Amino acid sequence: LRSLLNKQDAVGIREVAEELHPATVAEFSEGLDDHEIWHLLDSLSVEQRAEIFPYYPLARQIQLVEDANNSQLGPLLEGMAPDNRDDLLRELDPSFVEAILPLVAKAERHDIRMLLSCPEDSAGSLMTTEYASLPAGISAGEAIARLRTQAPNSESIYYIYILESDRTLVGFISLRDLILANPTSLVADLMQRDIISVKVDESTEQVVQKLARFDFIAIPVVDNQNRLVGIVTHDDVLDTVREEATEDAQMSAAVAPLSEGYLETALITMTWKRGVWLTILFFTAAVTAMVLARTPITHVWLIAFIPLVIASGGNSGNQSATLVITALSMGDCTLADWPRILRRELILGLLLGTLLAIPGFLLALLYAPSPAQALVIPLTILSVVMLGSLVGSILPLLFRSLGLDPALMSNPFVSAIVDVVGIILYMSIAFMMLS
Amino acid sequence: LRSLLNKQDAVGIREVAEELHPATVAEFSEGLDDHEIWHLLDSLSVEQRAEIFPYYPLARQIQLVEDANNSQLGPLLEGMAPDNRDDLLRELDPSFVEAILPLVAKAERHDIRMLLSCPEDSAGSLMTTEYASLPAGISAGEAIARLRTQAPNSESIYYIYILESDRTLVGFISLRDLILANPTSLVADLMQRDIISVKVDESTEQVVQKLARFDFIAIPVVDNQNRLVGIVTHDDVLDTVREEATEDAQMSAAVAPLSEGYLETALITMTWKRGVWLTILFFTAAVTAMVLARTPITHVWLIAFIPLVIASGGNSGNQSATLVITALSMGDCTLADWPRILRRELILGLLLGTLLAIPGFLLALLYAPSPAQALVIPLTILSVVMLGSLVGSILPLLFRSLGLDPALMSNPFVSAIVDVVGIILYMSIAFMMLS
Repeated sequence: LRSLLNKQDAVGIREVAEELHPATVAEFSEGLDDHEIWHLLDSLSVEQRAEIFPYYPLARQIQLVEDANNSQLGPLLEGMAPDNRDDLLRELDPSFVEAILPLVAKAERHDIRMLLSCPEDSAGSLMTTEYASLPAGISAGEAIARLRTQAPNSESIYYIYILESDRTLVGFISLRDLILANPTSLVADLMQRDIISVKVDESTEQVVQKLARFDFIAIPVVDNQNRLVGIVTHDDVLDTVREEATEDAQMSAAVAPLSEGYLETALITMTWKRGVWLTILFFTAAVTAMVLARTPITHVWLIAFIPLVIASGGNSGNQSATLVITALSMGDCTLADWPRILRRELILGLLLGTLLAIPGFLLALLYAPSPAQALVIPLTILSVVMLGSLVGSILPLLFRSLGLDPALMSNPFVSAIVDVVGIILYMSIAFMMLS
Repeated sequence: LRSLLNKQDAVGIREVAEELHPATVAEFSEGLDDHEIWHLLDSLSVEQRAEIFPYYPLARQIQLVEDANNSQLGPLLEGMAPDNRDDLLRELDPSFVEAILPLVAKAERHDIRMLLSCPEDSAGSLMTTEYASLPAGISAGEAIARLRTQAPNSESIYYIYILESDRTLVGFISLRDLILANPTSLVADLMQRDIISVKVDESTEQVVQKLARFDFIAIPVVDNQNRLVGIVTHDDVLDTVREEATEDAQMSAAVAPLSEGYLETALITMTWKRGVWLTILFFTAAVTAMVLARTPITHVWLIAFIPLVIASGGNSGNQSATLVITALSMGDCTLADWPRILRRELILGLLLGTLLAIPGFLLALLYAPSPAQALVIPLTILSVVMLGSLVGSILPLLFRSLGLDPALMSNPFVSAIVDVVGIILYMSIAFMMLS
């Protein structure tokens, strides 16, 4: 590729790029510098440029855009699919976005403004406004002829949406059914009227759940008057699910979600994203230390069990929080199930607490002066495991009911709360039973 | 639906079912008992039955199959897509599977045996053997005519694979390109020759990464001679990603992955899946208790800092483990990057440890008899945070290199190891500095 570039062989470059998947071209050319990439892109057709560009990592796209001149940027922005362009514009400096807006054709500007005004985690932010649509009153043969002239892009041709003149969505037909149908049949008779759609302000989680449940390649997005405004395609849903799973995992481990890959994230950014949470958790742990420092521990054998008591509560709380968070995001339960969830967690806490109390008692017998005193340990374990189960299930439900992401801070929060309350419980039970 | 069933109105039922998405029919009829569901299914065509059945929850499918007679089961198994049938057969009792194998036509039996012999997490286990294929030497118009007679199912018609007579994969063409092409053009000239495929024994993780990277609706699966054996479709990849994200989250919180939804899992199963890990972690915590019990703590003020020291190491370890696990599963890094990962984690551990050591020192000044003695705390914090970073990054890499799932036990393992070693570090540093 580089040798073709050096030879200024635009035709050769264009032919090579035509043969390869756009993602492959992007991958091969990632090693080139910005100047060389623009040289490569300039050798290609506008369509090719717009197809290849979104496959560069986002950070690289930003860098390339900021280095480009207006004659390079205009055609690129116009050619890019609205959802890809939206991803890019979101990450650019707002003043830079304002400056390049005139570059984009008037019709496109409307799309951008609409997408940018959708909240980050709504169906509207995921959708593309490129879709294939037809009226109901034509034949299957006519429909195929019209699709040939519309020539929609590859991700949106497989479902064709049937609209009334005011864009009200009345049905859809798959390209498969259109091909297999008798060319003289009317679209109105062939189309599916049982439409599964999402509202533009529904959450991405609901989009994912519906698309996954119905195995669709794309799902239509409608406004409150049931007018079609866009579609969300399978590939964007897959990307969203993968990104959200990663973000949830990072949040549950007390890391502020990374916007780039692990190895691409600068060490200073990483230090900040981990450090801010470590510091917050440090101060909650400091509360535990201050509580312990103020408690005169008259029975020295109790000290050895401090980490064990804390770990039991934390582990149980972590389990409950993760189970409730994953169940909410998979759609296995909703906020309305809270009485059932709490009842289950109460029973589980009791069962698991009893399970751990038994080896806890045996271990305590080794170090306590008497079996009666050793009872402090199993009683504390039972209490902290139940505490963990309850706090771990209540916090994600509480976050969800406040409209926050349940994964946001639940696990670190759960550990911190269970640590402090667990120590207080331990010291209180010991005080009551030993004095 | 129930009233139609009671009226024995088979035609009415068939019409209602035709109007609705199979998933909707399954959802509506989930409340019926097994007898009523079979009555409903028997009223429908074989195709409808086979389409609706896979949308019942797997546990329900098993129950229904075990209640069915052979004349109900035969057509159902023959009609089901190979991947759905495979999911079901995997969960059934092996002796039951042997008993019903004669029911399935001879040609189908071969598919089943092949799929069942693929490891659970390989491309082969995800693939379906239903795909559309054509030879290269025909025209686009002829290709569409042949597709009409093949009438492949909806998930597999959108990419057509071009095969030589020995099934060697030489190219593919999307239905879109076939429709848009001049009907007289040769398939050989239209098809893409730059094929992205997966080998039958590649991991599902690699399938997910390739399909997500190239935004495909389906990806072909080939054997070692590059002969097409099946395809993996976007919907199965989406299901896999969601299931694996849930399993990873549950494993990282020390819960053995649930095979059903949170609310569907019996309390006794849940107790087992949580209890087994809580017990294992309890015994590692017991080691910490025994270490502490054997260490004479001559300086009482050190006791208050035990939970804080442990929490700092555990939190840092949890962060590193989760970052490395998510990076591996997103394809952001591979095993070969281990020197870079360890170097990064070493530096991060140093930075983060220093960050926490400062407030740690200030807090220790409040309780330690002298500033020199207070230094034990920041030094310990620095050591355990670095320990956490290193153990947290090494364990997932080690698990991966042993061919195990990095998410398998890393987080609970990390905490357990960091707890024990952290306490030993704390006591050793205190002993060296204070005696």
